[in-house]
Amino acid sequence: MINSWALKVKSFLTWAVLYCIYLIFNLLFSRKLLAGENNAMKTIHIGILGFGVVGTGVASLLTQKKDLLESRIGARLNLKTIADIDTQTDRGIDLGTTALVQDAMAVLTDPDIDIVVELIGGETVARKFILTALENKKHVVTANKALLAAFGNELVNTARKNQADLAFEASCGGCMPIIKTLRESLVANDINTMSAILNGTCNYILTRISQDGSSFEDALKTAQKLGFAEAEPSLDIDGHDTAHKLAILNSLAHGMEINLKDIHVEGIRHITPTDIEFAKSFGYTIKLLAIGKFHGDHVEARVHPTMIDNANPLSHVDHSMNAIAIDANATGKTMLYGRGAGMMPTASAVLSDIADIARNIICSTVRRVPILGYPEDNIRKIPILPMKELMTKYYLRFEAQDHPGVLSRISGILGENRISIRSVHQKGRNTSGRVPVVMITHTAKEAWVQTALSKISVTDCVVGDPMVIRIEDEVA
Amino acid sequence: MINSWALKVKSFLTWAVLYCIYLIFNLLFSRKLLAGENNAMKTIHIGILGFGVVGTGVASLLTQKKDLLESRIGARLNLKTIADIDTQTDRGIDLGTTALVQDAMAVLTDPDIDIVVELIGGETVARKFILTALENKKHVVTANKALLAAFGNELVNTARKNQADLAFEASCGGCMPIIKTLRESLVANDINTMSAILNGTCNYILTRISQDGSSFEDALKTAQKLGFAEAEPSLDIDGHDTAHKLAILNSLAHGMEINLKDIHVEGIRHITPTDIEFAKSFGYTIKLLAIGKFHGDHVEARVHPTMIDNANPLSHVDHSMNAIAIDANATGKTMLYGRGAGMMPTASAVLSDIADIARNIICSTVRRVPILGYPEDNIRKIPILPMKELMTKYYLRFEAQDHPGVLSRISGILGENRISIRSVHQKGRNTSGRVPVVMITHTAKEAWVQTALSKISVTDCVVGDPMVIRIEDEVA
Repeated sequence: MINSWALKVKSFLTWAVLYCIYLIFNLLFSRKLLAGENNAMKTIHIGILGFGVVGTGVASLLTQKKDLLESRIGARLNLKTIADIDTQTDRGIDLGTTALVQDAMAVLTDPDIDIVVELIGGETVARKFILTALENKKHVVTANKALLAAFGNELVNTARKNQADLAFEASCGGCMPIIKTLRESLVANDINTMSAILNGTCNYILTRISQDGSSFEDALKTAQKLGFAEAEPSLDIDGHDTAHKLAILNSLAHGMEINLKDIHVEGIRHITPTDIEFAKSFGYTIKLLAIGKFHGDHVEARVHPTMIDNANPLSHVDHSMNAIAIDANATGKTMLYGRGAGMMPTASAVLSDIADIARNIICSTVRRVPILGYPEDNIRKIPILPMKELMTKYYLRFEAQDHPGVLSRISGILGENRISIRSVHQKGRNTSGRVPVVMITHTAKEAWVQTALSKISVTDCVVGDPMVIRIEDEVA
Repeated sequence: MINSWALKVKSFLTWAVLYCIYLIFNLLFSRKLLAGENNAMKTIHIGILGFGVVGTGVASLLTQKKDLLESRIGARLNLKTIADIDTQTDRGIDLGTTALVQDAMAVLTDPDIDIVVELIGGETVARKFILTALENKKHVVTANKALLAAFGNELVNTARKNQADLAFEASCGGCMPIIKTLRESLVANDINTMSAILNGTCNYILTRISQDGSSFEDALKTAQKLGFAEAEPSLDIDGHDTAHKLAILNSLAHGMEINLKDIHVEGIRHITPTDIEFAKSFGYTIKLLAIGKFHGDHVEARVHPTMIDNANPLSHVDHSMNAIAIDANATGKTMLYGRGAGMMPTASAVLSDIADIARNIICSTVRRVPILGYPEDNIRKIPILPMKELMTKYYLRFEAQDHPGVLSRISGILGENRISIRSVHQKGRNTSGRVPVVMITHTAKEAWVQTALSKISVTDCVVGDPMVIRIEDEVA
């Protein structure tokens, strides 16, 4: 009796030991501590949501660069499924064994799929799909800056809760590795200043006005004809797309919550060839800049047309090119330059995210670099400086009445509001008998300038609203 | 008897099971699968070899940015020991509990130290120390481009054998994240062209000649006075430092063995204000470029003064700034711009390597990204095109005798050697009665040009050696 009990125990314990040994080996192998580098090549399955321009680019890189990717990453990247409402249009690529389906759930619920690439855009369906993917423990790669800017904190928290990765290199600056640079390379730096050209449409239009002297409207039409602007261009030209990107960059630069609504946004609709000519005569260029500055307890985050010195490398970034200049405490001034949009540049950035996550999977790790570059518990809320508190220099252009005393009246009101004038410039009167008068100020507070301008506008000295363009002499 | 034996077995097996369970939990915890993100903060110990300029920069970032680094990485980076022959000089930083010792072995054999940072430079002692560190299973971070270019393959193989990481972001381009960009961000790209300004000394001197019209010698003296050039400047101005960096970039761009000796190297000693003036008149700028081009079965890798179009963003990279332009198949043209040397920019790059390795340690992984961007088994030997096979355009300046028939004779010899001339330019004769004649060629083979030039030099048409500067119209 005792004997048989002892034997049962012995047999049970023997099996338990063997099972434990099996588990240990399993773990060791999965960490490649024993397997070395010769273990069988892993296959990582990818699903794409949205088979539009960028989706097609990503699919074509995954198929055409299959060998390169395998040779670099040491794993197979298998594009298992693409979901898009339109399964009929020929995108001109051979999908091989990849399934093209209409139902996104075929991607989101497929237990094989490790990485979901969201390339639908917009803030409703895309949001729902990304949340579902994360809740299903899938890693997500997205290029959706609008969604990240509006719902970034929700997505970050959902990814955290589900121990999934969320990557978005393609959301800002296209092929430029700005997300990786901020999260990883500049790790020991305070990012004092970021100033960036992040919208190819705006930069193309400003370049055209500058080079041809054409009006904003004509430049926009040319941009639309050449495919550099959408038929409905307001997201771009009113600065919102740039603001979405700045919100993301800001949060990464300082480990702070994404906060779109506090970013001041102005677009480029009102920029005239006259202003660009004046800028040239001062050795300046006008660019739509995203500006982020760090002041320890608060940050600046603003998007507006900006005059920059021609010695600033950003002034040479023309046409649809993008660039991000960073002034950080250890690096000093640096800049990334490249295409901020387009099928293949964006797809290149998406692939770098996929590769990063694939390397994590191979190493049996996850979220190796926190999503915003700081572990979520260390993400802070840093207030954004209200625009009226901004201190900067200003270009002010008035359509002044051409009679005596006008200049003295305008400069008097500016002076009463503590705004000191660096220089005054005047151009020959126009047909209506009015003279464009330009004043460049020393550093002044935005609130003072707005007060002074509203006082000037009710005098009989000027006609119409003055043009206000902020000047950044010292941007990186 | 049987009973007692059964009890012994039972007791032994019980302990075995408990021990196995302990091991499993241990492994799970070390992978943070069970521990979540709330496990106690890890400390990663760092040792620095070499307390010179960059060593001081790294030590100062590790101490001054301690909180920032901890908040970003989620681990403590403890600078445990610095080894340097000179332990007396005050470097102006408070080392706190960090030991400053003379014996490098105190770092290399300390079982606590996870990461060894080699900042001694040179190819003998540094090599020995790095190999020892790797053999002691320590991860190594180095900025030593000369060593990597000469002994890179040995270091890579030693790191592999010992399952240690070897990182060198600071070796090329200072604070610019070019290593990370090539290894990770451009993973889905063929790197068709790299063209880079990688030496601040040369770029400073060329900028001075261009801006002041000063001679090379005067510009060098100014650079030395301002600290932009060494007292013994040949490593920089003869192009070797640039070649070291190109060797490293080339190997990363294409997953090929580091191969310094096949890189063609020319410096800038012979560049004159006359050439720079001619260049300007053509809309060109002269820069010392590292050029790498990928042709599938072979690559180009060469360092020489190069005329580039002023529309090329590299032409605006002035003074001691560096930049790397890349033309890759998916991204198109991109560029990184920043400080390529100096205490803090270099330290910033070293810190990004340290953070990368620290994140690997936290995730219990190692060598997550292969050292050269490709798993070692996939590293190829790709031949470098012999210089005589190069096809490019040429700027040729002759000191021509000012008599009839000279131009026809020179162009005749060029024509006989299949070199077709795009344009001819002449400047007023100099005091010796000779005329500088400049010819710009269409694309020609280097061998043809060298043959033609040696034939021209034995005629009585020209005096002295002609100036040859290669033109890259289409660099990224």
